[in-house]
Amino acid sequence: MPLLAAGSETSLPASDITTLLLAIAVLLGLARVLGEVCRKLHQPAVLGEILAGVLLGPTVLGAIDLSVIDWSWVGWDGNLPAIGSDLYNYLFPQPVDNHARIAEDGFIVLSASLLLLVVGLEVDLSAVVRQGKAMLSVSAMGILIPFSLGMGLALLFGDVLGSGARAANNPLAFGIFVGLALSITALPVIAKILMDLNLARSDMGVLVISSAMCNDLVGWIGFAVVLALISQGGEASGPAIGVVGTIGITLVFLAFMLTIGRWMLHRILPYVQAQWSWPGGVISVVFVIAMSCAALTEWLGIHSIFGAFVAGVAIGDSHHLRQRTRDTIHQFIMNIFAPVFFASIGLRINFIEAFQWDTVLLVCAVALIGKVNGCFLGAKIAKMSNRESWAVGFGMAAQGAVGIILGQLAYQAELISEELMVAIVIMALGTSMLAGPVMQRILQLKTQRHLNQMLTDRHVMIDPEAGEIESLLRAMCARAAEITGLEEGTIFDGVWARERVMHTALPNGMAVPHARLDELSKPTVILARSHRGVDFDAADGMNARLIFLLLTPTDQPETQLELLSLVAKTFDSDTVRARCLAAASATELRAVLNQAAAEDTASQHHDDETLGM
Amino acid sequence: MPLLAAGSETSLPASDITTLLLAIAVLLGLARVLGEVCRKLHQPAVLGEILAGVLLGPTVLGAIDLSVIDWSWVGWDGNLPAIGSDLYNYLFPQPVDNHARIAEDGFIVLSASLLLLVVGLEVDLSAVVRQGKAMLSVSAMGILIPFSLGMGLALLFGDVLGSGARAANNPLAFGIFVGLALSITALPVIAKILMDLNLARSDMGVLVISSAMCNDLVGWIGFAVVLALISQGGEASGPAIGVVGTIGITLVFLAFMLTIGRWMLHRILPYVQAQWSWPGGVISVVFVIAMSCAALTEWLGIHSIFGAFVAGVAIGDSHHLRQRTRDTIHQFIMNIFAPVFFASIGLRINFIEAFQWDTVLLVCAVALIGKVNGCFLGAKIAKMSNRESWAVGFGMAAQGAVGIILGQLAYQAELISEELMVAIVIMALGTSMLAGPVMQRILQLKTQRHLNQMLTDRHVMIDPEAGEIESLLRAMCARAAEITGLEEGTIFDGVWARERVMHTALPNGMAVPHARLDELSKPTVILARSHRGVDFDAADGMNARLIFLLLTPTDQPETQLELLSLVAKTFDSDTVRARCLAAASATELRAVLNQAAAEDTASQHHDDETLGM
Repeated sequence: MPLLAAGSETSLPASDITTLLLAIAVLLGLARVLGEVCRKLHQPAVLGEILAGVLLGPTVLGAIDLSVIDWSWVGWDGNLPAIGSDLYNYLFPQPVDNHARIAEDGFIVLSASLLLLVVGLEVDLSAVVRQGKAMLSVSAMGILIPFSLGMGLALLFGDVLGSGARAANNPLAFGIFVGLALSITALPVIAKILMDLNLARSDMGVLVISSAMCNDLVGWIGFAVVLALISQGGEASGPAIGVVGTIGITLVFLAFMLTIGRWMLHRILPYVQAQWSWPGGVISVVFVIAMSCAALTEWLGIHSIFGAFVAGVAIGDSHHLRQRTRDTIHQFIMNIFAPVFFASIGLRINFIEAFQWDTVLLVCAVALIGKVNGCFLGAKIAKMSNRESWAVGFGMAAQGAVGIILGQLAYQAELISEELMVAIVIMALGTSMLAGPVMQRILQLKTQRHLNQMLTDRHVMIDPEAGEIESLLRAMCARAAEITGLEEGTIFDGVWARERVMHTALPNGMAVPHARLDELSKPTVILARSHRGVDFDAADGMNARLIFLLLTPTDQPETQLELLSLVAKTFDSDTVRARCLAAASATELRAVLNQAAAEDTASQHHDDETLGM
Repeated sequence: MPLLAAGSETSLPASDITTLLLAIAVLLGLARVLGEVCRKLHQPAVLGEILAGVLLGPTVLGAIDLSVIDWSWVGWDGNLPAIGSDLYNYLFPQPVDNHARIAEDGFIVLSASLLLLVVGLEVDLSAVVRQGKAMLSVSAMGILIPFSLGMGLALLFGDVLGSGARAANNPLAFGIFVGLALSITALPVIAKILMDLNLARSDMGVLVISSAMCNDLVGWIGFAVVLALISQGGEASGPAIGVVGTIGITLVFLAFMLTIGRWMLHRILPYVQAQWSWPGGVISVVFVIAMSCAALTEWLGIHSIFGAFVAGVAIGDSHHLRQRTRDTIHQFIMNIFAPVFFASIGLRINFIEAFQWDTVLLVCAVALIGKVNGCFLGAKIAKMSNRESWAVGFGMAAQGAVGIILGQLAYQAELISEELMVAIVIMALGTSMLAGPVMQRILQLKTQRHLNQMLTDRHVMIDPEAGEIESLLRAMCARAAEITGLEEGTIFDGVWARERVMHTALPNGMAVPHARLDELSKPTVILARSHRGVDFDAADGMNARLIFLLLTPTDQPETQLELLSLVAKTFDSDTVRARCLAAASATELRAVLNQAAAEDTASQHHDDETLGM
């Protein structure tokens, strides 16, 4: 790099800066793309984000080495370049003292803390208090049962699991660790899943999140105890206060933040809002407080994310934090930092190399059985219904990032073998993947349909030529035939039969021709936007300019009404109709619908916001 | 740190993570506090942010070493701890291979790129094209004149300035560099100043920004030429394409981004808005594109901030980027990353140690004279008025961060001495400090008054006891007397004389008793919020619940009307009135006014936003 060629005193030469920027771009880009793919497949976005890391990490990209393939059998003795692993090593350098890697890891650490800050902001403390008894019961049973199972497993099958060098002559520490590893709950993952399912602010969501929080606290403190058990007074940089001291200070910190700290925030936030530039001042203050708390808990040995989380809880509880500010923080962190963090999980682990069937199966089975049944029991004790109790059980079983971090730390501390670490990571991912869909099925949550999800560009016709009803409907049915594979005539006959009874005009220049069809496999909507309008004989005399062709399977009799009310609801807004009429292309029109759907969801979230500060 | 005590494979041990998080918190916290103080003093916030770095850097905090003081003269031979420099070295470690420092520097590099992304988003390309001729004239003269002066200075006074080891036998390279250093304009600083002055979207603001952009491009390419001149083919990590190749690729990149790149963005953004989660998808895309462009230009040797800036220009131009998304990005970056970047400038330089009067004076004088006059001439050639031309000259003279970065890079490349670097940094800071106030004075910009700026908590009376006019006004006058130091009787007499002629009720439950007073030094407003209301004999029969006592100096006859219309305008909104009535304290009430003022300013900015996508 010319700019810094000579005797430079910089810690980050241009080549490392290039790597850092490119690595973040690639990581975020792929994570977001796969996250959106998962969303389309009705999976939590976090799965796609984790998968991006696995693809970019040693498991896939790092393993692609075309240069080792022997090409002599095709009569060629040349070598292909090791393009995959070279790229991997360039983007995510291995040596722990590589400057680009250090800067990347710094960004990832920040991302993890900021993610937990947002998770904390979402926690509604008063709801936690309301859930107090249930929370205690769920988190107590959710720790006790899997912990006992895990500890028993470790003491009985230590060889299969594989303990690390340091734990060889300390089976107790090993046992406690495995117990902990199987009883933790992943706050960020389960929070994201609950947000995806629109449950984060429901009573059950709050119960799961607060139990997970309680769980995490016990987990981290327990882990500190384990490390104290196996350490022989190494070079600790934290306070020389021993395990009891660490636990004590952590509890004092927690109590302080949730009482005096909260009270102080209630004073500081209005002051900042009154005196500083608005709304930026509050964003800075939130960030500074989160980083300070994160630094404190990192120094205590409880990991930075715990401090950021507690800061988020204390701040988020304040009604002085306005919704707009909250949204800005949420949007920026969930779309920049969170995907990078989740993708980073797979970056340093080769999932194939260290994979051992028996270890993985054992860990997965025990974790799932212990955690699901433990939390189910806890929920039953708190007098919840069977259905809800199972949902809580599977929700709490999601181990996600925290399980992975614990596994990594234990491996680094030579407490467990690489194989056990990989098993814990896979178990953490698997339980996280399971949690969302299983909860959705148990609770029979109907994912809310939005028009935009049913449309692609091919479903939208911008200003078709047809100027009167019959030709317009023929054109729309032709398009529907292309998409569904049904016969155009069949569709048109059904639609036209209905239309002849009475025209299907709605107020405000809309029309909803529709038909139930035997051969149709799933509901199909064709949307035509016609600038000059088509006369559907409306009561208000307006020509229809937005025409929705609603085709539903005969065996789903309720779907037609559902679609009708969906159209009516979405297009009740003057703004949405005006924007649709102004859209220059099918894609732009769908962007309008996408935004309308997002704002609809958001407004359901924030119904509780009032005019007051 | 217990968690990672044993044979860890991590690149960032917990102690470094603690340092990283704490350093960011301290840097951001102090930068924002001093930034707000500067804002209160009617200085650009960026000055306070830079000052925070100087205070936390080697100049102040790092220099505090109480242990070297000899206390024997007070009869004590003990030592005080080196608390300042210890803290400095802890927060911002010196060694270039210290992991915490590398992670900090990575965050700062990111911050610089993100700052330039926002600056780029603010550029309105069509306005740049409108300004085309003026822009060319200003930037050409703004480079030629200071460049010639600087080069002459370097060739004549090379000894005073102090060239580095590498430049000893290459006076030409040294001359070109000094010329460049004096002719550059700081895009981020001037952009921030223009935003603070509410000029960023005015024709003159766009002229200054686009000239600075053109200027920067020439500057960075010129700097690459200089380094090519003095380098003897060192270990370059960038492309082996020589100076001409670098310039060529840069121009191709620029042309691509502003034509095909822009066109592609016009396609991608609606697609993302239609398909991805809204509005987060767009935020991720903007970030990924900015990081990719930054990586590309860093690799080319033109510095990452240039790529981020160009990306911002290409994206910001799209009308598909909605105002809400723009605001989220803007708010987050300007309140988290920008302050950290500006504060980081002072972190590694001891401004006192390397300070030499003659070098500093010479550099400052030549830079100011050359740049101001050059740009003034350029503006005159483009037929601007004298007043505007001088404003452009002083605006373009702001060297800010870019001058500092250039100076640092040249010092690292052993092209200039440490003394010259410090002189360049001080010149860059000085010209940046000058630019805002001087432009404001030349253009006779009246900073817009907002009610909130005139109020402290003492100016606001929440629910005073008084239930009828006279006692209420007596109480308000007593408060005014406390604040202004005038006699209570004098104030009340003036107010009551006016009130007896006719009561000062406004519609919607407001009243504005007022008086002009001889002895008053500045306009004073007392706001009383009365829940039960006071009868001011209003035409609509409503009791006044928001009462403004407006006191103005007799020698500012126009101020009274200005305040009256300000009250009327601010409280025209039902929402603002309702929130003021709901506020629980003076601070909360002022937070409402602060928000109203910010939204008022923002709406002036974005008047051009329409319903369309």
